[in-house]
Amino acid sequence: MDLSVDLDTRGDRVGAIYRALLAAIRSGRLGAGDRLPPTRSLARDLGVARNTVATAYERLVAEGFLDARVGDGTFVADLAAPAPAPRHPGALHPRAGWTFSPVRVSGETGVPPYDFRVGIPDAALFPFDTWRRLVAAELRSGAHDPGRYASPAGHPALRAALARHLAHSRGVAADPEDVVVTHGTQQALDLVARVLVEPGDVVAIEDPGYPFAREVLASHGARVVPVPVDADGLVVEALPPRTRLVFTTPSHQFPLGPPLSLARRQALLEFANRHRVAIVEDDYDSEFRFTERPLETLHALDRHGRVVYLGTFSKSLLPALRAGYLVAPRSLRDALVGARQLADGFGAPHEQVALARFVADGQLARHLRRARGVYAERRELVLAGIARVPALEVVPSAAGLHVAATFRGPVDEAAVVAAALAEGVAVEALSSYAVEERVTGLVVGYGAAATASVTPGLERLARLLGGPAR
Amino acid sequence: MDLSVDLDTRGDRVGAIYRALLAAIRSGRLGAGDRLPPTRSLARDLGVARNTVATAYERLVAEGFLDARVGDGTFVADLAAPAPAPRHPGALHPRAGWTFSPVRVSGETGVPPYDFRVGIPDAALFPFDTWRRLVAAELRSGAHDPGRYASPAGHPALRAALARHLAHSRGVAADPEDVVVTHGTQQALDLVARVLVEPGDVVAIEDPGYPFAREVLASHGARVVPVPVDADGLVVEALPPRTRLVFTTPSHQFPLGPPLSLARRQALLEFANRHRVAIVEDDYDSEFRFTERPLETLHALDRHGRVVYLGTFSKSLLPALRAGYLVAPRSLRDALVGARQLADGFGAPHEQVALARFVADGQLARHLRRARGVYAERRELVLAGIARVPALEVVPSAAGLHVAATFRGPVDEAAVVAAALAEGVAVEALSSYAVEERVTGLVVGYGAAATASVTPGLERLARLLGGPAR
Repeated sequence: MDLSVDLDTRGDRVGAIYRALLAAIRSGRLGAGDRLPPTRSLARDLGVARNTVATAYERLVAEGFLDARVGDGTFVADLAAPAPAPRHPGALHPRAGWTFSPVRVSGETGVPPYDFRVGIPDAALFPFDTWRRLVAAELRSGAHDPGRYASPAGHPALRAALARHLAHSRGVAADPEDVVVTHGTQQALDLVARVLVEPGDVVAIEDPGYPFAREVLASHGARVVPVPVDADGLVVEALPPRTRLVFTTPSHQFPLGPPLSLARRQALLEFANRHRVAIVEDDYDSEFRFTERPLETLHALDRHGRVVYLGTFSKSLLPALRAGYLVAPRSLRDALVGARQLADGFGAPHEQVALARFVADGQLARHLRRARGVYAERRELVLAGIARVPALEVVPSAAGLHVAATFRGPVDEAAVVAAALAEGVAVEALSSYAVEERVTGLVVGYGAAATASVTPGLERLARLLGGPAR
Repeated sequence: MDLSVDLDTRGDRVGAIYRALLAAIRSGRLGAGDRLPPTRSLARDLGVARNTVATAYERLVAEGFLDARVGDGTFVADLAAPAPAPRHPGALHPRAGWTFSPVRVSGETGVPPYDFRVGIPDAALFPFDTWRRLVAAELRSGAHDPGRYASPAGHPALRAALARHLAHSRGVAADPEDVVVTHGTQQALDLVARVLVEPGDVVAIEDPGYPFAREVLASHGARVVPVPVDADGLVVEALPPRTRLVFTTPSHQFPLGPPLSLARRQALLEFANRHRVAIVEDDYDSEFRFTERPLETLHALDRHGRVVYLGTFSKSLLPALRAGYLVAPRSLRDALVGARQLADGFGAPHEQVALARFVADGQLARHLRRARGVYAERRELVLAGIARVPALEVVPSAAGLHVAATFRGPVDEAAVVAAALAEGVAVEALSSYAVEERVTGLVVGYGAAATASVTPGLERLARLLGGPAR
């Protein structure tokens, strides 16, 4: 038998022989039924004591890799034959009804010179030094009981800081116990879908709207019905009568832009109360608003406890922080916390405490003030750039990190987006957010685009669209 | 009208008046239909220009809080009446079939003097200084594209490091693309359930077993069938014929302890292949093994691509890191990555890269070597302590951070656990992990118990059980 044994390794000769034999069995060099050499002869070949070999054999027998047959010898067990390396495609397939494949996201592609993609904040504005100091301060041996399992609702300090922040900045009245910390809006939506959606339930989404909301609701069995959007936001009158849940973006309709009007807000709340509907209010980028004061949130206007309010730090700080939250009616809180426990246990306490300090110490407000100024400037440049293109008509909005513009005449949207990208200008097709509505145009983000790149980028776009800029 | 306006704030008098009026409307001091004072008289009262008040009114009219009736005056709009603070219990309730409420976990209770609770590693062993340095090094402005959205599968560096680590330490053959990073075993299980379980599917779990596995599978509509466990692990012959998925802990049956025998492993794989069953192999604490070499994993023995392998850093490092992984057959990989994208987007890249360095640079191996020595000593003390109690019979096992012991005679398990806790000794009731099996005894963890506390803690337990120790 050709057995390669490395007897120099740390003097553990039994272990070395054991591992060599196991490797031979695994690789197939020793096959099922093969007889092993007698311990005496292998010991002589290897220059070790016979007992050393015998002990290695005994372990492999005890573990079932070898069979010792009394008076006959030692054999490789039938059961021990090696599995081939799993290069095969596998025999497990998703269940019937699972249709979602992962979508390539912004971090998986190159960065274009003129990056007007949607939903990307400017990482250069983020106070990394402050954040690193806060995180490092919480990453210490005695802090936050790191060997134990923490509350799925989130650290009390962060829930308290968020409750205060939301009351002050958004008029959302919540006790800390009403807040559930999440990894972002997507997880919040998933938790809501888990506890509210029964297979076949009618769920209304905005059209155009946020594709991952549609997908996660559908993945829980919802019958997702797209509802049109106009200049006052979601068309409440178009909600299907058997709706169980409405997903809406009232501050800054995603991706078109208009806020949901106050009349519509009231109509939606009345509809929800009359038909026993849940409203999921996604307030994803309202921190960047460019009017004195936004409309009241649905949560603040809600008299009956039918609104789940979602917020995220992915736009206001960074997606990489993986931090968001929801505010839920009392009657739903335990179920949502339980859903988080089943989904992924809990979030890292040291990060939550660092974030609590960031919020409570005024760092968040300071960052938002600074970022708002930068984004306001870019926004003006974007609006001016679009205004110079006769083919584009901007959709009015008052908040956020992007604006949408529709085409005034017949324009081949896909061709424009592709031609722009070929010139280094990444804009998004409005129709890519639509389900049934026939809406074409462009969505232009200004979170990722450096201020100096905005005007030249939009001039390139203007040339493609036959605008006046050269 | 009693309007409190702070006209000192940053000189923005329009904003100050606007905010004061809005606060009055919100608080109910100005009710729907109330007439506002003429701009001239309010301006005089406040000592500001009339135009300042008029501009504030106009904003509130534009936003729908006020109605301007030509020739009549300005009134609080009907729609603008304030919502009461949401102290009401809410009107949303979990869907039919949602039965799970959050379970109190180890970090939400006090720490008992003799802490033999299960699944808690010793945080004092974790190299916090190294970890903090690694995390801080990745938390810098230019690194990892933190403004963009990253791959839901996990950072390529971590997937590569895990693939190498698993090949070396567990004989799991996987390419980096076969690895999906998760927040731990719980999330991995959730992803598997999402893509494999249809409502009504029969899913087999071990009894006694891991309660959160049962709960998350049931929450996705599985008909969960408990299957008994004996000294060879899961009783494969007892699997129901219509099983679609089996959840098992072959290295160290949770919580009883025995490894799944090689014969049973083969029988399980054959059963899975014959009946087209998915096997979920949870290898949750096999890093701490106290024999030379463990049995091959199901994943390594699988010839047909029917095994999804789950691992976690919650036992080998810390639960607070929120890090785990799964290795999936190719045929299921896209669906699982998609499920992660819908569940919570992706994990924080800077942490994943820090963990990749920790694994690839040998820090993980170094930590495991050291921790294994500490836990081996505690384990010997636990086994010796249990051996001194005639009423307890230890269940043989070879790995992990806890041992189970059954009662030799009739013992009131709940009374023993409660009496022990009253003496500062936290042990767990074996029956708390069982569904249908009538099994009583104690589960004794030694991850959290300081080495010096083990013997005195078990002596207290022995006294309660009428043992000889004093």
